[in-house]
Parts: sequence; C-alpha cells; structure tokens
Amino acid sequence: MRPERGKEATAVSAPVVAVIMAGGRGERFWPLSREVRPKQFLPLTGKETMLQATVARLRSLVRPEDTYIVTGERYASLVRQQLPQVPAGNVLAEPQGRDTAPCIGLASLFIRRAHPERDPVMLVLPADHLVTDLEAFRRTLEAAVEVAQAEDVLVCIGIKPTRPETGYGYMKCGEPLGMGNGEIAVYRVEKFTEKPDLDTAYTFLRHGGYLWNSGMFVWRLSVIERALAAHLPELASGLVTLAARLETGSPWADVFCRLPRISIDYGVMEKTEEAVVITGAFGWDDVGTWSALSRVYQKDALGNVVAHHTASRGDKHPPARPILLHSRDCVVYNGHRLLAAIGVEDLIIVDTDDALLICRKHEEQRLKELLSQLRRDGLEHYL
Amino acid sequence: MRPERGKEATAVSAPVVAVIMAGGRGERFWPLSREVRPKQFLPLTGKETMLQATVARLRSLVRPEDTYIVTGERYASLVRQQLPQVPAGNVLAEPQGRDTAPCIGLASLFIRRAHPERDPVMLVLPADHLVTDLEAFRRTLEAAVEVAQAEDVLVCIGIKPTRPETGYGYMKCGEPLGMGNGEIAVYRVEKFTEKPDLDTAYTFLRHGGYLWNSGMFVWRLSVIERALAAHLPELASGLVTLAARLETGSPWADVFCRLPRISIDYGVMEKTEEAVVITGAFGWDDVGTWSALSRVYQKDALGNVVAHHTASRGDKHPPARPILLHSRDCVVYNGHRLLAAIGVEDLIIVDTDDALLICRKHEEQRLKELLSQLRRDGLEHYL
Repeated sequence: MRPERGKEATAVSAPVVAVIMAGGRGERFWPLSREVRPKQFLPLTGKETMLQATVARLRSLVRPEDTYIVTGERYASLVRQQLPQVPAGNVLAEPQGRDTAPCIGLASLFIRRAHPERDPVMLVLPADHLVTDLEAFRRTLEAAVEVAQAEDVLVCIGIKPTRPETGYGYMKCGEPLGMGNGEIAVYRVEKFTEKPDLDTAYTFLRHGGYLWNSGMFVWRLSVIERALAAHLPELASGLVTLAARLETGSPWADVFCRLPRISIDYGVMEKTEEAVVITGAFGWDDVGTWSALSRVYQKDALGNVVAHHTASRGDKHPPARPILLHSRDCVVYNGHRLLAAIGVEDLIIVDTDDALLICRKHEEQRLKELLSQLRRDGLEHYL
Repeated sequence: MRPERGKEATAVSAPVVAVIMAGGRGERFWPLSREVRPKQFLPLTGKETMLQATVARLRSLVRPEDTYIVTGERYASLVRQQLPQVPAGNVLAEPQGRDTAPCIGLASLFIRRAHPERDPVMLVLPADHLVTDLEAFRRTLEAAVEVAQAEDVLVCIGIKPTRPETGYGYMKCGEPLGMGNGEIAVYRVEKFTEKPDLDTAYTFLRHGGYLWNSGMFVWRLSVIERALAAHLPELASGLVTLAARLETGSPWADVFCRLPRISIDYGVMEKTEEAVVITGAFGWDDVGTWSALSRVYQKDALGNVVAHHTASRGDKHPPARPILLHSRDCVVYNGHRLLAAIGVEDLIIVDTDDALLICRKHEEQRLKELLSQLRRDGLEHYL
C-alpha cells in the first residue's frame, strides 16, 4: 500500500477486519449440501471447505483474531471446528437468517466493541465463492483497503462479466476515481441493476462499462455505520438496542429477529451516493449451482466435468472414477459407488450415500420445488 | 386334455417333465443383475424371483420331481436355495454355458435315466420370462402337451407380435394342423427368420401370419432325441459318451465342454420338417432389457415406470418412492436411497448399493461396452 493522501497516516495503522458471511443454506447444491452441512462447509471446489478457503485467502491481510464469521446458530460449532485459528467469540451465531444488512450490522457491533477507539477497515465476504488467482485477489483487496481508508466510500468488488448472467446484480461504472494501486481501476457506481433479463444482460455485455456485483465489500466501520443509519434507520435503531444488550451480556436473539429482513445491496448500496466499484480479475465464481462446476473444473473432451469426492480421503476403498460412455456436457459428483452413464447429455448427476439427483442442466431452478416436495412428503431427513 | 387320436391311450399316462433353462448371465440388467446373481434369480417383475415364478407357473402341469433346472455351476446352490421343493439332483450344473442345444441334450439324458421305459413330454422353458395371464398360459401348455403326445412334432410356443421387434426370431405360420384344445391354433412352421431388420419386422407385422419364437418348446423325449441325432449328429454322439459317464458315475464336465456350441433354434428348429407352432396369448414378455420394464410395469401419467425394490422387504427403513419432477418416459429401479430426477426423459436409472447406471433408452446395447470397460479397468468386482 502506498500512502498518498491525507488520511493515510492514521488509517494505515487501523486494523483490517474481515466479516465472512456463512449463513447460506446451499439448497441449490442438494443432495450434497444439506441443512446440517450447507455448501460453504463442503470441499466443493478443492481440498479445503469453501469457508476454510475463504479465510485462508485473507491470511496476508487479516489476523485470525480480526476475522469474524457470521453464521446460523446450528452451524456455529461446525465453523469453530473448521476454523480453529479463529477465536470462538468471533463466530457470531444468528438466531435466524435475516439477509445481509442485519448480518453486517451485527458484525459491526462486535467489531466496534473490539476496536472502540479506532476505525477499522471491514472486508465483507461471502463464505462460498471461488477464487482461482490468489495473488490477484490479494492485490485487489489491498487496493480496495487503500481506497476505503482514504475515502468515505462503500467499495464493492466488481467482476468483469464474461457471460449474460441473469442471476447476478450489475453495476454501471461512472466517473473514474483514479485511485487503486496502479493497474486496478476504481469508479463511482452510476447505477445498480439486480438480475436483469437476458436481453438487458446481453446489452450490458456488448455495451461494456458494467461489472458484476460480487457481493464482496470493503469500507471503514464508521462509513458503514453512518450508511446504515442514513438508509436503514429502523435497522440502525434495532442495532442500538442490540448493542445495549451486548453491553450488559443480555440475550439479544429477540432483537435480532425483529431487524428488517433486507440485503445490503437493496438497503444501502442502491441508495447511497458513496458506492464505488473496484475491478477485480482473479478467477472469481460464485459457484451458485451445480452447472457452475462446468466453469470451475476441467472438462474432458466431451465437455463432461467430474467433481472429485474429496470427502472420501479417509476411505479404505477410494471410489472408482465415474465411467461416462458416449455422454457429453454432464456435471458429475460421485460418491462412494461406481457411477456409469451411457449416451446421456446435459445432465447433472450427484450421488451421495442416501440420496441421488439426476437433473437436466437449466432445470436446476426446480431444485426448490423438489425440496418443497420432500417437506410435503415427510422426507425432511433428506433436506 | 381330450384324448382324440390313436396314440393318446399310452401317451396320456406318460409324465410331463419340465426343463427350465437358467444359465443366463443377465448382463443387460447390470447393475442389478450381477455375475453372482443374474436376472433369473432376482425378483425383477414381482415378489418371487423370475426362476421361482417360472416353476410356480407349471404347478398344475409338472410335479417338482419332474422339474429339471439347468444352470451354471456357480448358481446350482442358489437354484437349490430358491427351489427347495425341487430335488437337489434335478438341478443340473453345466460346467460351461454352451447354448441351448447342449443344455437340452444334457437334460434329456437325465430325463431318460429317470424314465427309461416311458416317453415323457418335455416342456422347455427359459427361467427369465414374464407371463401375466397364468390361466391362458396353462391352457396353452396343456394344448401343446396334447399336440406333442399325439404327433411326432417339435412344438414351439409362438407369440403374436405386437411391435416390430428386431431382437426376436419370427416364425411364418404354414398349414394349420387343426389341433390344440379348441381356441388355440396350431400350424406347421413354414419358415424361421432370426432377428430381422426393422423393415422386415414391419412387413411381418403388417402381413400377419407371423409369430415370435418365445424360446419355449414342447416335445416328447423320443422326438427330440431323434431330432438331435438327425440334425446335430456331433452333439448326439457327444451325448452318448456323456450318458455312458453318467451311467458309471464318472465326471462328465470335459465331455460337456466339447459339445458343439449351438442353439436349439439354429441347430434343430430351423432344419427340421417337424416344427409346429402353437399360438400363445398370455401376456408374455422376455423382459430382455431395462426398457422392457416399460411394457411390464404400469406407467405414470408421464410414461415413467418405477420398478419396486422388492428385495428390501426385510429392511427396517423401506426406501422412499423415487421423485420424478417434470420427467417423462423413464425406467427407474431404485435401491435403498432416495432417488430424485428433474426434467429428464428417456432415461434408464438403476440404483444399487454399490453401483449406479444412468443410460439413455435405445443405448442399452452399449451395456456390453460398459462391462468390457469394467473388465479392462480392473473393476471386475462390479460385474
């Protein structure tokens, strides 16, 4: 980091803290991802779980004692088990998922208590994304930290779109800020567009100057505190009550459960004048669905992707590699059994010890329907 | 049975014996059917195994002590276990599968030893076919027995074709014999056509007067003995040697393994002038492939067939019914795990404890390829 502006003298000495949002249910990765162990706690894209990989990526930027994990109550012990280096008190258990604004608000209270006299820079990161270029990721975050230290802005990490994805939010880049560390550009955000239709997404892609909202944010604690007060006053006032409970060591679950259920994108980023975007190019993928593994794993000559069953490392008999005969463009996650496919295409095949999914690609959105039916049919133990 | 002709006086008193051919490997039903337990030993179409059902269907016609099962050496104990009512000595273990003519020849030797002074009527039946109308089946066999007792003919049970099947043999009906018990017609066979191409099969279907060769035969012992001697002299002479070994209680495996490898269809039926066909209409299916279950089981509104996992009756937790969302024309055989399919069609999905098959219908012939690959890859334990 190169101190260039007035504020750096104090800002550099302020700690960098990380808030990892690990409360997702991972339903789109059923049947591998289950209620008792959602996606972020699985080694879906490598040997570490996605949560472990997320924390490991921050190693050079954030100390373990400045790393906070926000998760659901039922996952707190799993988080502590997967991240023994993080202090147990930094694992914040939400009594109920209420979207990202309350999640970030809760974390900000704990960070404020840990650093009452200072103004840390907060990194906010989902626990279940994939990053393949770790060095570029580190450089981008360093640049974002620099910007957040120097300016009263809410920095969003933007990703250059590579396909007309309709499931993401897009940001239109406005005035360049001429900041960042050299090759990394920073812009005011002119406009947010959440989940455009396909035509619009194509237009954005052709037009250029649009970036995907990665859901990763960087800001100073004081800046997000002010932004929550300005744009989500009800949430902010709930947080004041919650802070008082924390102060006296009283239970706070009831207060949290009454906080407005809203995302930081809708609640703050789309309203504020302070949103800026920094361009990230570090092999990012949110790995949102089984199909996404086609982008993440290497394909065979016929476009098939086989995800390794890394959870079986302790097995006496490692599972046989799936046999895919005359089959193309499939995504296969095999369990302990032999899996053989003949003459099929465009299928997602996921084999686990007690449940098996065979789903046509592009029908993945129907997984929700399937899970509803499991509930209806009294098969909750498969969720 | 209505004695009408000269020979009946003696013939009626001759016993009816059954030879059940249970030596198949059932490869087309992998992974449910395995080398250690092929199709005929599985409850594929009901609560009993196909072998048990085959024997049960003959209950009113053949006594257990006149029932012979020819199978592979490795299956002899399984046969005895599944058919405790059949004398252990009636389970004939082939040291090697050498097609149906040697199989029938071997059985004829044992039947001759059991009935040296008489001329029993022999029913020859595959162990792995399905019959749904048991009463019609019984009437057809009774008529066939009557014909075989009355005439020196080789009776084949013919099935009226319902589709242009290219995997079966067809028989052209010639001169009617005016026999059979009333509604059941008997014809000389004018011509055999084995596995016609699709155009020819369509022609047969349109033309009429063709019947499928069901692989079920009825004849007197003396008639098949003479036919083997006339049309397969090498086999017949081998059987003489084999009979001598049996007489002295000597091992006979080496003799059997040198018998010509040939089917009764090619070796005898297509050559003889004595072939007649009796029309059977009793809900027959040879259940030759997974797709065949579409004909055997009831379909849901979208054309899916779910075969029940009857082998699990002893299970503490019966398997959940497969969930097929927006899926059509699939054949599903589920194991102990939950099976969910979304948006797929024309698939065969077979789930077993250690192996899983997903195969496009009409690509079933590639199962052989798959099994070869398993051998090549050192995965014989899945065969």
